[in-house]
Amino acid sequence: MGGTIAIRVAVAGASGYMGAELLRLLLVHPRVTLTGVTSERLAGEPLGSVYPHLRGLTDLVFHDLDAEWLAGACDVAFLALPHMESQKMVPVLRKRGRKVIDLSADYRLHDAADYTTWYKTAHVDPAGLAEAVYGLPELHRKAIAAASLVASPGCYAAGAILATAPLLKNGLGRLEGIVIDGKSGVSGAGAQGRKVDPMYLFTEANENVQAYAIGAHRHTAEMEQELSALAGERVRVSFTPHLLPLTRGLFTTASVPLATPLGTAELLNVYREFYAGESFVRVLGEGERPTTRAVVGSNYCDLTVVADPRTGRAVCVSALDNLGKGGSANGVQNLNVLFGWHERAGLEAPPVYP
Amino acid sequence: MGGTIAIRVAVAGASGYMGAELLRLLLVHPRVTLTGVTSERLAGEPLGSVYPHLRGLTDLVFHDLDAEWLAGACDVAFLALPHMESQKMVPVLRKRGRKVIDLSADYRLHDAADYTTWYKTAHVDPAGLAEAVYGLPELHRKAIAAASLVASPGCYAAGAILATAPLLKNGLGRLEGIVIDGKSGVSGAGAQGRKVDPMYLFTEANENVQAYAIGAHRHTAEMEQELSALAGERVRVSFTPHLLPLTRGLFTTASVPLATPLGTAELLNVYREFYAGESFVRVLGEGERPTTRAVVGSNYCDLTVVADPRTGRAVCVSALDNLGKGGSANGVQNLNVLFGWHERAGLEAPPVYP
Amino acid sequence: MGGTIAIRVAVAGASGYMGAELLRLLLVHPRVTLTGVTSERLAGEPLGSVYPHLRGLTDLVFHDLDAEWLAGACDVAFLALPHMESQKMVPVLRKRGRKVIDLSADYRLHDAADYTTWYKTAHVDPAGLAEAVYGLPELHRKAIAAASLVASPGCYAAGAILATAPLLKNGLGRLEGIVIDGKSGVSGAGAQGRKVDPMYLFTEANENVQAYAIGAHRHTAEMEQELSALAGERVRVSFTPHLLPLTRGLFTTASVPLATPLGTAELLNVYREFYAGESFVRVLGEGERPTTRAVVGSNYCDLTVVADPRTGRAVCVSALDNLGKGGSANGVQNLNVLFGWHERAGLEAPPVYP
Amino acid sequence: MGGTIAIRVAVAGASGYMGAELLRLLLVHPRVTLTGVTSERLAGEPLGSVYPHLRGLTDLVFHDLDAEWLAGACDVAFLALPHMESQKMVPVLRKRGRKVIDLSADYRLHDAADYTTWYKTAHVDPAGLAEAVYGLPELHRKAIAAASLVASPGCYAAGAILATAPLLKNGLGRLEGIVIDGKSGVSGAGAQGRKVDPMYLFTEANENVQAYAIGAHRHTAEMEQELSALAGERVRVSFTPHLLPLTRGLFTTASVPLATPLGTAELLNVYREFYAGESFVRVLGEGERPTTRAVVGSNYCDLTVVADPRTGRAVCVSALDNLGKGGSANGVQNLNVLFGWHERAGLEAPPVYP
Repeated sequence: MGGTIAIRVAVAGASGYMGAELLRLLLVHPRVTLTGVTSERLAGEPLGSVYPHLRGLTDLVFHDLDAEWLAGACDVAFLALPHMESQKMVPVLRKRGRKVIDLSADYRLHDAADYTTWYKTAHVDPAGLAEAVYGLPELHRKAIAAASLVASPGCYAAGAILATAPLLKNGLGRLEGIVIDGKSGVSGAGAQGRKVDPMYLFTEANENVQAYAIGAHRHTAEMEQELSALAGERVRVSFTPHLLPLTRGLFTTASVPLATPLGTAELLNVYREFYAGESFVRVLGEGERPTTRAVVGSNYCDLTVVADPRTGRAVCVSALDNLGKGGSANGVQNLNVLFGWHERAGLEAPPVYP
Repeated sequence: MGGTIAIRVAVAGASGYMGAELLRLLLVHPRVTLTGVTSERLAGEPLGSVYPHLRGLTDLVFHDLDAEWLAGACDVAFLALPHMESQKMVPVLRKRGRKVIDLSADYRLHDAADYTTWYKTAHVDPAGLAEAVYGLPELHRKAIAAASLVASPGCYAAGAILATAPLLKNGLGRLEGIVIDGKSGVSGAGAQGRKVDPMYLFTEANENVQAYAIGAHRHTAEMEQELSALAGERVRVSFTPHLLPLTRGLFTTASVPLATPLGTAELLNVYREFYAGESFVRVLGEGERPTTRAVVGSNYCDLTVVADPRTGRAVCVSALDNLGKGGSANGVQNLNVLFGWHERAGLEAPPVYP
Repeated sequence: MGGTIAIRVAVAGASGYMGAELLRLLLVHPRVTLTGVTSERLAGEPLGSVYPHLRGLTDLVFHDLDAEWLAGACDVAFLALPHMESQKMVPVLRKRGRKVIDLSADYRLHDAADYTTWYKTAHVDPAGLAEAVYGLPELHRKAIAAASLVASPGCYAAGAILATAPLLKNGLGRLEGIVIDGKSGVSGAGAQGRKVDPMYLFTEANENVQAYAIGAHRHTAEMEQELSALAGERVRVSFTPHLLPLTRGLFTTASVPLATPLGTAELLNVYREFYAGESFVRVLGEGERPTTRAVVGSNYCDLTVVADPRTGRAVCVSALDNLGKGGSANGVQNLNVLFGWHERAGLEAPPVYP
Repeated sequence: MGGTIAIRVAVAGASGYMGAELLRLLLVHPRVTLTGVTSERLAGEPLGSVYPHLRGLTDLVFHDLDAEWLAGACDVAFLALPHMESQKMVPVLRKRGRKVIDLSADYRLHDAADYTTWYKTAHVDPAGLAEAVYGLPELHRKAIAAASLVASPGCYAAGAILATAPLLKNGLGRLEGIVIDGKSGVSGAGAQGRKVDPMYLFTEANENVQAYAIGAHRHTAEMEQELSALAGERVRVSFTPHLLPLTRGLFTTASVPLATPLGTAELLNVYREFYAGESFVRVLGEGERPTTRAVVGSNYCDLTVVADPRTGRAVCVSALDNLGKGGSANGVQNLNVLFGWHERAGLEAPPVYP
């Protein structure tokens, strides 16, 4: 790294899988030094004893979740906190001049009324909410670069938005009748050591599939916010999330009615143009299939689109790692954008296959 | 069984998973005697050495696939043959007066033109095709009881039709804009010992999800045939199948635009009425979730429906075992209907949990 | 069943996986009626809502764990209770003349001192302990038939004892240097709904292997008790259990130093003779491999033995279902022995493959 | 990398999982440039279309397996070829002055007679065999640094040797009665696209465990060679490998009779001293458990030892990634040693958890 000065980064809420993935990435990021980690449950415990995979890689010890301490410990804070906790921390951190990359759902919706509708409670930091930038670099790179508060997308939202954005941006999709099916690995929920729902037990989740939160999943609001902005008109989507028996991976199948009849090759050209120059979105060729296997452990989102002339629809499919482009790795990409570094810094390692 | 005489049953194509599941069920069915099994690849080998789980349970030996031999060996033949093979066997068996339950795709479409469209070849037994009954007892019980040739549904078709039939039968669903997402375990493909695509290797399928045959899966034709018959009008569906990392299980998520606004409770009443008296369809209550785990190894199809007033759609979800209600167990139910036995005969064993 | 009168059976502690498996088997056992189920946590809840796979199959409701109520409800009680709970129930049940099949560890060791050594506490029912029969029919069929209290073996113990018994019974194994490696699926621990160790989460157990309780697992005491009895001399074994990423299945690899040099064929003859006539032990031929896949969902134990002349050892391997021959199904076999029924009654269903 | 000149590295046999893992590591290794990949089956195909995870990361195209071409393309060649193929390539490469790191079994046994015994054929390059260094840096660092031909260990051998070396080196273990149980993920066998045994299908390997090659696995010879060298006396081990339902991961449980009675704490001290300064061996504390989960995707071997005073044995357990320390990552460590680079170069990324 020569003469460069490393940025001090802390992770609040590092006891969940999203936080653990941040640690894995930040410990070897060439431009940063990990200077603090917090967890109310684990305060006082060394990172290496809580996370056996990190044994020997760091001397850090979990600290209580204390906003003032956190502000002192870092230049940038990643928040991997449960819903409702981030909005208590952010005002303190911002008052102290710290930049924040929030991986929780707290700052993703621009409209406080929308927030209340979906989260059934008023937001405690509406000022922050109004200023936060939705942290999908493929859509908001410039705004992220200038932001002090970045709200990294939900995993389902990232998969759905990336899969359909080119259609809606270009007026190719009709705005009624979009149906999105999300399929997630189990690491999207729960956390090592935290009290968990029995549905996340191996014996319950293994060899099992189920839909949940039908018509009611909160990531729907993010999808509609971002797709509406792209379309320039209000878009509603019917979204159904599913829990699958895999640890990591998120697959999205979006069915979009086409405004004009287009073939697969034409649609693919639209996608290639839309994502030209993007480091982490790979548009596959006709006949190639996105798989979660090909992106696991990385920040990639692999996607493709297929025209279905029988029904006048486009089927848009994307594969990403829910802890990668659907979470922590995307958060690191936001960090890179925020500091003007190469977007691949710390994200160079290829996906882990098999 | 007292004085009852067991019916002689044979299984052609018993080297695949569908055939193996038939053997598991028929060996302990109280009304039948398994009298023959065929496999070109395994001819001469004892069942118990090919299938270690059946070791000690039968002395049967695989026989060549020979229609005349088969006709001599049984009263009823189950055909678990690859596509295109059944239509060569069926005419011979029927000429000899044998009843046939076909688990292949060969006799599911009534319209020979439809068959040609989806299977890219002409049918060699159009007479059989015209007489075959689609083997979903919940829709065609009477016709099955009187049939000599029953075409048991494809796994995706069974899941999709059972999930949406009550809506379409009652004019509650709109016929445009139906989107169906199918998710299947790996046993839906491949077979122990047969040459297989590398995508079915453990190292490739484990911890992986992918969509395939987008807009082109042949089970779509069955769905449209049956749903159109229920609706009394031509129905088109947009169907996307997925391969999931589980051995058995098939989950269907169908999004149907509602013709009139209805709530979840009203929709559930429609479903309960439609499936009243059915032994193997369990309509779950509001807030309950179908899971493949709860039906594995059985002939059950668990399902529910949720109204999504935001989008004016009903989300219909069903869970079944692709080798159960999506295949062999449903075939055995057809057998029971065909002979007027109790429909649960040989299908009493509860699902295997966990 | 004609004029036969069904025996009334109850299951105490039906909220765990062992209890759930008993329900699955007993609900379709031709000679019994399931008349009661208990769970302190689930009292008042219908079986079918706690166990979605049993939905529609029974109207039973969980009852409090109350020994007097239990005694009134049944002729035979299966106890699938946590360690230390069975010994409180058994005296009450026996005083009321009920037969008991205990699946807990409470009555497996004949010697109260042994019990104290391994369980770190005194037994509260030493009289029961002295009378209990170790419920492995392959070793103690006659005693079980005459017993009023049967202590069904631990899963690891069942696998290890069945794998090595023929060697020790016949003086072919040396008594020093026996090393046993046990590998279990996750359903051996935890229970749907019960508070559980995070190590049983899908995200922790999937794609993971670990050893635990090294040199200290309590099933070791059962193995030594039974193998010592067979050998006529004190046997000590070095046993290490492992947790594997599978739901059901238990595999045992036992290495036994041979007292005299014997080849694989000779060893197999010894095994075949030892297990001649057994319904549920399948001795595989030379070159055949036991797999858990071939026994899942059943009461079978598949096993084989291989001579390793380089080291003068026999490698004995067995595969069973930890909830099957390693638990509930073996309990049902004990029930059949106890009442003089055919040992396969209620256990006829072949293993579930794939 | 500043002014340093990258070494040119090629991978022969890159169509298997071991080769794929080398590509994943070498593409981001800071000191090397990947200049060639070979595969007879895939010659002419771009790396990125064969390996979707590498799409966009390299323009390399598979070349025929041609030793002369290979010698021209690189300074160092990794050979990830099937058994018997490496020994044909190595003489050509060495004549041309290329260094070779062989991941096949061809050069691991020093004694040509041993080779013939275990591999049932004569070695075609006995000169190479005599000069090759066994590539376990923890045992042979100096020799590797000076070598031109390094034979990277088999996965089971790496796990077993690392688990037991400190005992045998220090005369603490008895040389008779060592029993080693190996448990491997499925990526240890097969390869994407290659013709494979049905036992590696998802439907066969999932939810399954089995032992294989009992008393006959070739890695046994490596274990005995290395452990004998450490002990200064001939050591024989009884080794049984198992196939587990996980993609990556190898767990070893070795039971070693102790020459003198020692407690766990004393044994751990011996281990800590033996592995002091090692970058990739982590000796866990008393009560801590090695898990494959904590090392997946990395070059770590986590291990511990527990005294079992009841049997006078030490139970030594180790966890590694069969493609990591059991294969490709260890090969990269050998490369680093060979060129005097920091041993962690290119191997800094923490294990992937969860």
